Parts: sequence; C-alpha cells; structure tokens
Amino acid sequence: MQAILFDMDGVLYEGDRLIAGAADAIAWCRAEAVPHLFLTNTTSRSRRALVEKLARLGIHAEKDEILTPPVAAINWLRQHCHRPVALFVPAQTRGEFTDVSLTTDTTKEVGAVVLGDLGEAWDFTTYNRAFRLLMENPDAKLIALGMTRYWRAEDGLRLDVGPFVKGLEYAVGIEPLVMGKPAQAFFHAALSLLGVEAEQTVMIGDDIQGDIGGSQQAGINGVLVRTGKFRQSDLSLGIEPFDIIDSIADLPLWWQQHAE
Amino acid sequence: MQAILFDMDGVLYEGDRLIAGAADAIAWCRAEAVPHLFLTNTTSRSRRALVEKLARLGIHAEKDEILTPPVAAINWLRQHCHRPVALFVPAQTRGEFTDVSLTTDTTKEVGAVVLGDLGEAWDFTTYNRAFRLLMENPDAKLIALGMTRYWRAEDGLRLDVGPFVKGLEYAVGIEPLVMGKPAQAFFHAALSLLGVEAEQTVMIGDDIQGDIGGSQQAGINGVLVRTGKFRQSDLSLGIEPFDIIDSIADLPLWWQQHAE
Repeated sequence: MQAILFDMDGVLYEGDRLIAGAADAIAWCRAEAVPHLFLTNTTSRSRRALVEKLARLGIHAEKDEILTPPVAAINWLRQHCHRPVALFVPAQTRGEFTDVSLTTDTTKEVGAVVLGDLGEAWDFTTYNRAFRLLMENPDAKLIALGMTRYWRAEDGLRLDVGPFVKGLEYAVGIEPLVMGKPAQAFFHAALSLLGVEAEQTVMIGDDIQGDIGGSQQAGINGVLVRTGKFRQSDLSLGIEPFDIIDSIADLPLWWQQHAE
Repeated sequence: MQAILFDMDGVLYEGDRLIAGAADAIAWCRAEAVPHLFLTNTTSRSRRALVEKLARLGIHAEKDEILTPPVAAINWLRQHCHRPVALFVPAQTRGEFTDVSLTTDTTKEVGAVVLGDLGEAWDFTTYNRAFRLLMENPDAKLIALGMTRYWRAEDGLRLDVGPFVKGLEYAVGIEPLVMGKPAQAFFHAALSLLGVEAEQTVMIGDDIQGDIGGSQQAGINGVLVRTGKFRQSDLSLGIEPFDIIDSIADLPLWWQQHAE
C-alpha cells in the first residue's frame, strides 16, 4: 500500500464532533508522508471552508489535499478538453474553475457543459440553454458534479444536481461523466492527482456503496469503518470490503500490518 | 376486427394538407358505425382545435373521439384515484381536467401528480413542489403527459415534458405512468374508452415505433401506412406490423377483407 483516500463525513467527524482518534490518525499519515487525499461529494462548501472545519477539529489539511467534484472536473477538463467550458454551477463553485477557459457565449462552440447544484437559480431558460449547448455541440461532454438526488434544507427537501443531469441525459441522449463518489471518473481523478496505482491505494469510508463499492470498482482497496453511517446490515448488500476496522483510530496499526 | 384507432398526423394529414382518401375513409368508418378513436400525443393543441383542423380538411370528428394524453390521464384518474390531483400542466391543458378533484394546496394529501409540458413556467420552486408532493405522498402516482424529449420552437429547440419526468423519476425513485404513444397505459385508456378488446382492435399509424410497436405491445393489431413519416428503412427495425397499406385510402377495402 502506498496511498490513502479518506472520506470525510462519518470517518473524520460526525456533524461537528471529531471521531475519536481521527486527528491522531491524520497526524500519523502526515508524519509518515503517506500520499493522501480527502474525498467528498460536497459542493455546497468550498475547500477553504472544509480546511477550516478540519482545523477547528484539530486536523491539519491543505486545500489541495481535498478532492471535490469540481476539482475532479477541473482536473479532467485540463487534460481532455480543449474548447471553452460552459458552467451551470453555483457561484461558490464557479470560483474553483480557475485555469479553465470558460464561456457564457451560447453561440460559441463548447467542449463541455458542467452541471452542479444550481438550486433556485434553475429556471427553464437556464436549463434549456444547457440542453441547446449539448445539442449544438454533439462532441461536448456533459460533466455532472455528483448525482445527488436531493438534500434536506431548513424548509424541506430540495432537488440536487442529479435529477437535472438525468433530464439532460434523456433529452440529449448523452452519457454524463459523473464526478463524485461512487462514479469511477472521480476515483480515477484521485489516483491521477496522487500519481499512484489503484491496487496500491486504500479508500477509507463509512458508506458501503459510495466509498467501498465505488472505489473497489475502480480497483482500489476499500476499508470500511464502523463509524458514521455504517450499519451492520450494510454487510449483506453484496459488497465485500477489502477490510473492516472499528474506526479511523485503528488505521496506523492496520497500515503497519498491510503496508509491507 | 371491431374497432379502429387512428393516428392523426401522417395518417389523415401531413402538415395542413389532407392525405388523399382520408376524408372518405373516415366518412366510411362513421357510416359503418365502426367504433373508433383518434390518438395523438399533442398536448399543445386542445381537442377543440384539433376538431376544427379536421373540419377544415373535410373530416368530421367529435371532441370525445379524440384521445390525447390529458384525456387518457383523466380517464385513469377517474377510475383509480380517489384523492386530489396536483397538476403541473400548461393552462390550455388544465381546462381539460374537469370532473377531477384538483388541489394547489401543498399541505394536502394528493393521489397523483400530473406532469405536462410547462415550458417557461418551469422554475425551481415549481419543479421542487412536484418533487416534494411525491416524497410526502409515497402512494401518489406520477402521471406523465407523454415522454417527448424536446420540440422545435421558432427560436430553437425547447425541452418538452420528458426530461422533467426523468428527473423526478430519479429523484423520487418512482416509475411514471406515461400517457401518450408508445406507452401501454395510453393504448389501455383507448381500449377502455371504447370498451373493446385489444385483439379486436386495429391501430392505423405511420410511426413504426410510436404507433405500431406501442400498440402491438398492448396486443392491438398495428397497421402501418406508407404516408407521413414512413420510411422503407422502418421495416428493418425489428417491429413487424400486423399489415401494411399504402395509405388510409385503402382502409375500407382492407377492413372488408379482415373484419370477418
């Protein structure tokens, strides 16, 4: 084993509470200089905000160590897209798209249409603009910043990015490139950023499907923790983790046993 | 054979031009008192407007002989839905929903959510309201007035109802009941309205998939015409029509040969 991918919520913390041993485990990882990334599907918080949250919990992390769907998308765009990109993402996500040629000119040829959780900013004209861009640019990629169905806001449930991706997928007849767990492209972005091979990498997560099932399909070794959203019944879903540990506190010892 | 279902566009007329023999064929059908319905996926024109169009072309039809997705939906709702219905349809379609208990009260229990081509009237709040209604009423049906992907407006392509149905299908995890060809529920509504059995019914259409494939899956005998959108290559798509005639002009003779 050479590198570690960490899920955040449910592995490092639950809500605003640190999971016992998480700060020590990350400090160990840093002291041993094990290449690592933090993987989260969150697009509502910037990487800066996530770094600050970790710091408050006593975990040191650099902004560049956090892989979010926008960051994975940018990494892909830089490598594969040589035409301007049209963004349909909220303002705080837009700020992440540096070093990518953007366009709001609907008459221009685009190489990709990126869809995020626009929320209230979705109206027919906006959604139809994304549709027309894809119809007029048959080679353009549809990049989805996750496929989350909905989230719970203070006033009730709200549609997230997933349903809007599904609608365009159907209207255009296009296969989206999904950035976010459990999609393969997201884990591939993590491996590409670290420069490591899947079989030498461990993904630590509490979500049997999103973290373990997804990473293992990409050839990564998924290690399930019994914290966060873990339920005993998760083990009967037909996904066999590479290993199971009680919590991230056990990681340093586990690593010693498996690294060599 | 006891009853006939007619597709309209491409069978009776092409654009604003009558297909030769169509008026005589319908007059024959009426004179022989063969039970029949006109089936169209159009939701942009009311049945009254369709009756007027047919009259201008010399074809007599009653409003109640035209089966549109809203009419099929209403027929289904009257039979199966005993709670209020929430409509997400354009104003001209809303007028069709008489004799159905409607609600705009989002706190009320609903039995069905009906989705049509709302067009510009779709905004996040409206779409999210349909979503919440379905989440809060797990027994409610999602009824789609067709699954059309898009249509060509004067200023370019526009998303139709289909993509919005797909989005809710994904968000809620629900199977929609689709009214409109080629969906089974639409042909079942036609048979139910005429009170006939599928195997005693003929569907005349120019669309190998929407008319012939769809009706034959419902057990109806599909008769393809070589007018409208018919192309010779349609015959190599793996759908075998019950029969093929040159145009609707040949229907009376065909009927004599097959009715007994």
